[in-house]
Formats: sequence, C-alpha cells, structure tokens
Amino acid sequence: MRKVYLDNAATTPLLPEVREAMLPYLDEVFGNPSSLHDWGDAPREAMEAARAQVAQLIGASAEEIIFTGSGTESNNFAIKGLALARQDKGKHVVVSAIEHFSVLYSARTLEKWGFELSLVPVDKYGVVDPEDVRKSLRKDTVLVSIMHANGEIGTIEPIKEIAKITKESNIIFHTDAVATAGTIPVDVKELGVDALSLAGNQFYGPKGVGALWVRRGVRIMPLLDGGVQEGGRRAGTENIPAIVGLGKAAELAKSAMTTRIENLIPLRDRLLNELPSKIEHVVVTGHPQNRLPGNASFCVEFIEGESMLMLLTAKGVAASSGSACTSRALKASHVLIAMGIPHELAQGSILFTIGIDNTAEDMDYVLEVLPPIVDRLRQMSPLYSKFTKLGKGGK
Amino acid sequence: MRKVYLDNAATTPLLPEVREAMLPYLDEVFGNPSSLHDWGDAPREAMEAARAQVAQLIGASAEEIIFTGSGTESNNFAIKGLALARQDKGKHVVVSAIEHFSVLYSARTLEKWGFELSLVPVDKYGVVDPEDVRKSLRKDTVLVSIMHANGEIGTIEPIKEIAKITKESNIIFHTDAVATAGTIPVDVKELGVDALSLAGNQFYGPKGVGALWVRRGVRIMPLLDGGVQEGGRRAGTENIPAIVGLGKAAELAKSAMTTRIENLIPLRDRLLNELPSKIEHVVVTGHPQNRLPGNASFCVEFIEGESMLMLLTAKGVAASSGSACTSRALKASHVLIAMGIPHELAQGSILFTIGIDNTAEDMDYVLEVLPPIVDRLRQMSPLYSKFTKLGKGGK
Repeated sequence: MRKVYLDNAATTPLLPEVREAMLPYLDEVFGNPSSLHDWGDAPREAMEAARAQVAQLIGASAEEIIFTGSGTESNNFAIKGLALARQDKGKHVVVSAIEHFSVLYSARTLEKWGFELSLVPVDKYGVVDPEDVRKSLRKDTVLVSIMHANGEIGTIEPIKEIAKITKESNIIFHTDAVATAGTIPVDVKELGVDALSLAGNQFYGPKGVGALWVRRGVRIMPLLDGGVQEGGRRAGTENIPAIVGLGKAAELAKSAMTTRIENLIPLRDRLLNELPSKIEHVVVTGHPQNRLPGNASFCVEFIEGESMLMLLTAKGVAASSGSACTSRALKASHVLIAMGIPHELAQGSILFTIGIDNTAEDMDYVLEVLPPIVDRLRQMSPLYSKFTKLGKGGK
Repeated sequence: MRKVYLDNAATTPLLPEVREAMLPYLDEVFGNPSSLHDWGDAPREAMEAARAQVAQLIGASAEEIIFTGSGTESNNFAIKGLALARQDKGKHVVVSAIEHFSVLYSARTLEKWGFELSLVPVDKYGVVDPEDVRKSLRKDTVLVSIMHANGEIGTIEPIKEIAKITKESNIIFHTDAVATAGTIPVDVKELGVDALSLAGNQFYGPKGVGALWVRRGVRIMPLLDGGVQEGGRRAGTENIPAIVGLGKAAELAKSAMTTRIENLIPLRDRLLNELPSKIEHVVVTGHPQNRLPGNASFCVEFIEGESMLMLLTAKGVAASSGSACTSRALKASHVLIAMGIPHELAQGSILFTIGIDNTAEDMDYVLEVLPPIVDRLRQMSPLYSKFTKLGKGGK
C-alpha cells in the first residue's frame, strides 16, 4: 500500500543531513558545554555554530537566540517571562483567539497570577485585524502575542502591521513563528517584533529543541531557573545533539526555502482546488491565498473528522483534524470556532500538511481515496440522511 | 597523551546500546506520538515502553512518570508546580542549603511570588539533620525538597528519615535524585517521597531528557502549558529519541547497577585515600563513607580550583570544581560554604566524578599528574608563600 504522510504540521521527518550532523554528538563528542576542560570545547563550539545558523534563518544576532526544549517551551517562556518581567508596569496581555494552546494556556496561567487577558478576534479566514489589536491595548498592556501563521488553517497574519501599532505604544510584541520559521521567510527586523518562537521539528530538524529569539535589551524572566546556561536565561544542560540538528536544519531551510516553497504550492493548490470539486459540501478553511505553502485544510460537512482520519490511515494516508498537541482531546478546534465556523461543521475538520518529500502522485492518491471515504461515512451519518431527505442534497 | 574523563557529574557519555536504541527514532520512526494515524503508533509505543523502563528503575508505576527536557526542568516543575498547586493551603516551602540551583532558584522564584522559604542547614559533611527539617516545618508549609545526594560532594542524605517527618505532618516531600537515580538504588516507596526528579545524562543516557515522578493522586501545576501531552501535565511534542534513550539507559542501569557500584568504589577510594597523602593540605569534602560511589571531592589549600582544572586539562584530565551548571559563574560553591568551609579553601575545590569507563590506570595517572600541578601552582601562590614563611608549611 502506498504510504503518504501529510501531517507535517504534527512533526516533520528528520533530513538525512541533519541526522548526520547530529550523530557525532551522540557519540564521541558528549561533553557538557559548560565544562571548563577540553571536553566542553567541541560541544560549546557546535552549539555556538548552531546559534549562528538559527540566527541567520531569522535575520537575528546569534547572542539573541535562546535554545529551549520545544516550541511549546519557547511560547511558555515568552508569554510568562515577558509578562512577569513587566508586571510592575502593568498586568494586561493581549493574544489572538486562535493562538496555539502553548500561548493561550500560558496567558490563562497569567490570569491566575493576577493578569488580565484580552483575546483579539479573527475574521472568517482566521485573519487578525491590526485595528482590533489597537483597540485592545490599554495603559497597562505589557505584552501582545499574535502568531505569525496558524498551523491548522495555514493563514498568515499581518505581523508587520501589528508591530507598527505595538511600537507606537511601546508594548512588547511576541510572535509564535513555530509554523513559519524554516518554512517561509521570517526576518525579525522586517517583522518588527521583539520576541519570536520557533521549533526544530517543524522544518525537518529534531524534536526536543526550539528557540526563543529575544531582541537585545528586552528583559525576560527565566521559566527554568538554575544554572547559568544561555546567559542565565534558560537553565539546564544543553541538548547538544538536538541543538546541532536545529542549526543544520535552519541552514538547510534557509538555502532551500525558495525551491521548497515553489514545489509545495502547486501540490497544496491541487488539494485546495480539486477536493471541493470532487466532494460535495466541502469548504476550504483559512485564507484562500495568504496561507502556508504546505497547508490544505478543509471542513467536510455531515461527518466527523476523526472518522475520516481513521479510514485514511487504513489507506496509508496520514492527515490530521487540527493540532496534534490536542488531537487526543477530541474537541472541535478553538481555531475554527473562533473563525465563526459552526460547531458541527468544525467537527468535520481535516488538515493535510504537505512536506518536501511529497509528490504529485501523493496528491493523486489522496484525491482518489478520500471521496469514497466521505461517501461511505455519509451513508452512515444521520445528519446527512436528514439533510438529503430535506431535499437539499445532490445539488 | 592519555585522556581521562573524570567529570561524569557534568554529563556522562552515551552508552552504545542507548545510542543504538535511539537511532531508529532519528530515522524512519519520526511520527508525533499524539497523532491518531499509524505514524503515531510506533513512537507512542516506544515512549510507553520507555516510561515503564524508567518506572522500573525507581520502583514506580509507569503512569506516574512525566517526561521532561532535563533534570533542571524536572526540579523547576516539582518545586513550582507542587507549591503553586497548594498555595491555598499555605505558602511556606523548605529546601536544604545545598540543593542544586534548579531547586534553590526555583524556590527563590516562589519567594518572588509571595511564598516564604526556609533553608535547612547541613553539617560539615553536607548532611541534613532530619530534626532540622522537623524544626523548619510550620502550619503553612506545603512542600519540602531535599536532594537524595549532592553531586558536588557526593553526600547521600537521610531521605527515608525526612520522609517520615513530612508524612507525619502530611506535607509533600520532593527529592532531587538527579545525582542518584541510575547510579545507586532508588526506590520511591522505600524512600517514602511524593515526587522525585531524575535526568538521563547522569547515567549514560541522552541529554535533553529527564523525568519527574509524582506519586499517584498528588496534584501538580504544569510548568509548560499547552497541549494534552503527558496527561496534560507537560505540554510540548515529546522528544522521542531522547525518551527512548532514557528508557534504555534506565534498563541498563538497573541491571548493571551492582556491578557498576562494585567497580566504582575502589577507584573512588583510591583517590579519597591517596590524594591527601600525596599532596599536603588537602581535605576530602563530603561524607567519608556515605557518599556516591563515583564521587571523590577535595579542597586543596592555597590555590584556585580553576587553575588546577586548567593544568589538569592540559594533561588530558577532565575534572571540575563543582557543578558544571555554574562553572562559568566562577564563584565559590554554595554547597561548600553551607558546610562551613572557609571561602578561601572553597576556592580550591576539585571534584573527580568517576564513570563506568574509568580504570585503575586512570586513577594512577591522576595521582601522578596532580601533585606536581599543585606544587607548581603553590610556588606562584602568595597565600602559600605567606603560609610557609610563617613556619607552618612542610608539616
């Protein structure tokens, strides 16, 4: 059976070059970079080289990069650390309604700690209106966090425009770029943000490593207290193999980005254009144009996304109905709900995230196997039979 | 030149069997364990097998193990998460004066959040008196954290006795077992604790992974908010290769523990016994008997530990003057100061942590190269020349 992995938002495979770069650090080069003796030198140098590679990916300076253990840790660190460092100034934070739960629930934790939280809405495409951000700002606002792109629906947010607004008010602006860094061009100076999160496993690097970029001079409270690693901002023995892998993945992403995007977009557009014509009552979710090059997301009416996934996996296809981080919670996506998609329709969410290993034949295969799956599920769906009995079916 | 790595407390090399176990998860088995499709199955099963292996190492149930990114994260999670989950009951926490900074500074952060902190002293061997713990308890005490053993001085603490006291008062007791789990027998039931931290890179497992064991029914607030991984207690895509490596390292540590300890103790004892006879004005730090099998720690009078390390590394020997996590801070160890060692003497700290790859010849080599290094440094030391002029030298 053909195997088609279309869940690259959950995690990407490791590139062979990345694995090769990591292997020496699982072997002879095992020292602790904090050690003052010779065994610390090679891992420390490798870590600093990786820091420069990550910095180059996002147009930053190496010393502004803090390595973390995941995109989730970067987001927790940013939201909690930037807000807590400013609580003397004010206790109000602003995030969008469609942030990843690592941002949203970090902000909820801040609420428990006496902060107030404003959620900025999105339109039907999942786009944040910068004017809504402006309206949400108060005298005591100390932090705004809006994601660069949403991994579930692919929509890219107007970060530059929002940054202009936060800058006018002298408010710190963080963006969760986990879905974009290494995938589309990300330049911290061009975006105008103050802090930015990224994760290795989103662009063919390893799991267990992320980074937080914090603009020089911006104070942040550590999330992990302890030793003096990462300039005293993130304690814990550094995960050298993963950091080296992240660096290599960043280097490769930077050099191959244009080619990768050029290859992904036609594959994505085939799904976006052809699925709704092959299957009735399918809507594309997210922005029609301004979206991630590998993201094709839909809602299929009258059926449950989970059932589609199960039958797709039986055909060798990996897809998702939203964020892998919450797939086991089996709830309708907060992202789709925030976009005004009715709860019932949101339950039929299906998300294909195309990666650099996918081919046109993979798309052919999905376009071939999905329609009969949907048909089969609809035959069993009481909602659908009710709908067709009402004479609205088969248009 | 001979290369002798005696800094296993900073980090241990990866065992070849551990590396082999990890490699498939850096290659074909790359999926996200949270994914509902087939690609999630193998990583999820591997993760659960590792969870069982870690649980077995410490006599726990698998579902009580939460994987983290490091021992430091486990300690931050425990101290902050256990205290915050109980702040309605009280806001007083107790830790020893010689805890690792990931415990101590987490407790300091709690102070910033309105908690009160009591530091329990230690005796000249670095031993906590359980009665001192008892005296520190108050009606509003919600958490006690005392390390199982101190990695800098090797002293093993009377955890069982302390656990009896905390249990009487119904207070949660966490122990930082980063220096002991995988090295000496650790059984959570026998110790009687409620939570326990461990780290993979301390027993020939990978960096970038640790675990927190929390006894069933004990509430803890997440440190990393976000997805529903680890039962909703620790968000973030799981670092599968590292988790698999931790599991394998735990399995190997359990089966080889007795042999390892039997091999380490004679090597350690040679250093503990012979260094003070080969070099004048050297004192062993830590407990004379009740100490980690691979830990040989000393203070050498009249010279700086850092200088010894530099000359030792030039001879191919890796040692440390304390915790690698703070080696770059170049301050006298808070552990030695808490033991009542004068600041000047504490500056001459040197720590050899012996690992399973070390041999008797390695000890010969250290016993051969260190005395001339100390002689040479003392020739340059104004403190030493003052001391000898006073007629106290050459005893």
